[in-house]
Amino acid sequence: MTEIPSDLTPVLDQVDRALDDSLSRLFGLLRIPSVSTRPEHAGDCRAAAQWLCQELEGIGFSARLCETPGHPVVVAHDRTPPQGPHVLFYGHYDVQPVDPLNLWHSDPFEPTMVTRDDGARQIVARGASDDKGQVMTFIEALRAIRATHGTMPVRISLVIEGEEESGGPNLVPFLTAHRDELAADIGLICDTGMLGATPAITTALRGMVGEEVTLKCATRDLHSGIYGNAARNPIELLCTILSSVRDRESGRVTLPGFYDGVREPAPELRQRWREIAPDDATFLGEVGLSHPAGETGYTAIEQTWCRPSFEINGICGGYTGEGFKTVLPAMASAKVSFRLVAGQDPVRVRESFCSHVRAALPADCTVEFTPHGGSGACVVADDATGLRPALAALGAEWGMPAVTIGCGGSIPVAADMRNILGMSALLIGFAHDDDRAHSPDEKYDLVSFHKGIRSWVRILHAFAAA
Amino acid sequence: MTEIPSDLTPVLDQVDRALDDSLSRLFGLLRIPSVSTRPEHAGDCRAAAQWLCQELEGIGFSARLCETPGHPVVVAHDRTPPQGPHVLFYGHYDVQPVDPLNLWHSDPFEPTMVTRDDGARQIVARGASDDKGQVMTFIEALRAIRATHGTMPVRISLVIEGEEESGGPNLVPFLTAHRDELAADIGLICDTGMLGATPAITTALRGMVGEEVTLKCATRDLHSGIYGNAARNPIELLCTILSSVRDRESGRVTLPGFYDGVREPAPELRQRWREIAPDDATFLGEVGLSHPAGETGYTAIEQTWCRPSFEINGICGGYTGEGFKTVLPAMASAKVSFRLVAGQDPVRVRESFCSHVRAALPADCTVEFTPHGGSGACVVADDATGLRPALAALGAEWGMPAVTIGCGGSIPVAADMRNILGMSALLIGFAHDDDRAHSPDEKYDLVSFHKGIRSWVRILHAFAAA
Repeated sequence: MTEIPSDLTPVLDQVDRALDDSLSRLFGLLRIPSVSTRPEHAGDCRAAAQWLCQELEGIGFSARLCETPGHPVVVAHDRTPPQGPHVLFYGHYDVQPVDPLNLWHSDPFEPTMVTRDDGARQIVARGASDDKGQVMTFIEALRAIRATHGTMPVRISLVIEGEEESGGPNLVPFLTAHRDELAADIGLICDTGMLGATPAITTALRGMVGEEVTLKCATRDLHSGIYGNAARNPIELLCTILSSVRDRESGRVTLPGFYDGVREPAPELRQRWREIAPDDATFLGEVGLSHPAGETGYTAIEQTWCRPSFEINGICGGYTGEGFKTVLPAMASAKVSFRLVAGQDPVRVRESFCSHVRAALPADCTVEFTPHGGSGACVVADDATGLRPALAALGAEWGMPAVTIGCGGSIPVAADMRNILGMSALLIGFAHDDDRAHSPDEKYDLVSFHKGIRSWVRILHAFAAA
Repeated sequence: MTEIPSDLTPVLDQVDRALDDSLSRLFGLLRIPSVSTRPEHAGDCRAAAQWLCQELEGIGFSARLCETPGHPVVVAHDRTPPQGPHVLFYGHYDVQPVDPLNLWHSDPFEPTMVTRDDGARQIVARGASDDKGQVMTFIEALRAIRATHGTMPVRISLVIEGEEESGGPNLVPFLTAHRDELAADIGLICDTGMLGATPAITTALRGMVGEEVTLKCATRDLHSGIYGNAARNPIELLCTILSSVRDRESGRVTLPGFYDGVREPAPELRQRWREIAPDDATFLGEVGLSHPAGETGYTAIEQTWCRPSFEINGICGGYTGEGFKTVLPAMASAKVSFRLVAGQDPVRVRESFCSHVRAALPADCTVEFTPHGGSGACVVADDATGLRPALAALGAEWGMPAVTIGCGGSIPVAADMRNILGMSALLIGFAHDDDRAHSPDEKYDLVSFHKGIRSWVRILHAFAAA
């Protein structure tokens, strides 16, 4: 345990006193529909970046908007404290699209405070959890520290990007170009969750390869009565090819070389996860399921924390409106993704998938590929800088020991920070699996927001004292 | 050969003289967007029915709109001629949806006359060929006869419905309820095509079973990083189930009992079709393909004229917009259809498909089915009433012998006329395979329209003389 600095209590009191103001600032950010994947929201993405710049300047940081070929990146610094490690905080201001809009119970961009039957309060809006709510826990922590002490406990830089949800290609060149400016001792990434009610630092993250595949057969849509059977149906072909990517019996991905370099999780790690993580019934029960799909021989948690996966994220072809249309379409397309673990190369996985599709094409059919992001997995060592003080600080705030966990999601910037900026990144966040990130009615618990702010105050002071 | 009545020539001359007026009336009907499958076009469907009523009354028929639970049916009669057989003409005034609208080169509901490089003129609009253009060949023939002779050569009734493209359930009860009123000697259905440049009567029609299948897994859309692999993906499940409906090697449908009652086409029929019908390269080449898909051992024409088929007409699930979204959706759906030949029971085929889907469902997954139409195949005997006079009349108009052919499409009313009204129906039409029925830029050749009108004049007089 690190020593708790004596100047911590007044900051935590300030956080508690200012909570309503912190919330109203978060609501302001949530009202900006910064959907990065939709071109019509480019102006909203810029507005969210500008909003963050102003907030950071307002609490004494030097902040600026950095242009990229896509959405701008917010960079801010307070490098005045002479002592302690220099931390680089990462978050993103962009959000997922909101469709299907009809399944939302309130306007996704008009944040609402909902009180559950058990009295728990939740902030409902697109981005409430992923990632605006989480980003604001850090900024509000900085504000409380500034208001109380006037100075930061350690040197702090922030990078808040706007293309995390769109797999935008611009962050890597940006980090590379600003390598010297952004170099620090500890990376902090706030885009992950807790383990139920237990505070957690994510130390194993999967990578991801996203790919869009479009199959084309005839030169135009055909009448299925006149041409059906005899003319190749691209939907059926797509179904056949996509269903061949997974072995029905073992649930394993069939692509050649897909598991090359993938190691089995260590028995002691599996044992620890079985102790701390929810069992299959609990994990799947939250979303109405009871039986794990996917690879046999692994629990649901193992499958999502340390095994690679294949998912079809979207499929479209032919007539999908109301009623029926006896069309034999000219094309069909799907968006698929692979989650990668340590040892897998995103470039090779993408090539293996594309080769598999090409090899399965019969005569008269063509394929077009559109890549959507690619990143390797990232694992943080047990002795990474700042990991122990951060775990201790989290434990103190939440009243129980913090744990290290894996995460099925992909946060490419963790690998980027290591590969480009040469530092390990601690993934600390306060989200929950039931936050409905990427889904209708996305929410963030008020407790996550409040204690998240307090957690950062403790963590930053712990770094200063370490 | 039947004797050509001496009063035929002045009627044909009248058709030629009035062609521009006939065209402008057709354009008027084409401008009504009577898309039966879309509820917002219900008023347009009624408007098209009313338009037809007025036209038929204008040429001396007693015409009326008959209400159904769906779109109204137009019924008209001129039963004054005492002599000859009584014919019942069938057509439909509804049209297919127009999407994808961006692939049309002109407004689908603003008919345009296009002149091809070779000088051929084509009427471009939704419904130009299927079926408004064809229906108007018959009505304009009646108009020319009335203008020339004042009386019809035979008793004529018309039924023009508005739910052919939507698989509406209302025609069968309607025909049943009006059985006595609609009883006639010869059915005429104008919703088929020629064989290239050769006039043809379709004597083998496939039936159809349409079904919509929706699979549901989790209770909400999930983040594919957090739940992927472990939670069942309904898109992947749908792909697997749909691709299992056809055997990859033989191309045959795998549903138990699917081929029960299906007879091989007679060797002499196959031989005749090989002589008159386009070969695979020609048939498929028109739409940019060269290799037949589907069942091995059959030509493309055999597959579409006399073999049952399975098609996926539409599929939809997950995120299908621009960019990428790492969603694991809660549901996915597809519209599929089976074309049936003589001997297959639509009820059994539907049950077999639904059972196949249900049997393939893993735990935690549910399925919902929405039926879309079902009808058996229909074959017209060589000695059916009116077949020989009609073939002779067509041959005289087009200057070459008319042939009998099969058709891959499904026109349930042919079986309905037989089963409910007790008469064989002759399927006579002037469409072409390249008319882009159900596709963008649907067209009808001006020659089809003009000589189609003349053909009906000859056929009706041939019936009178037979």
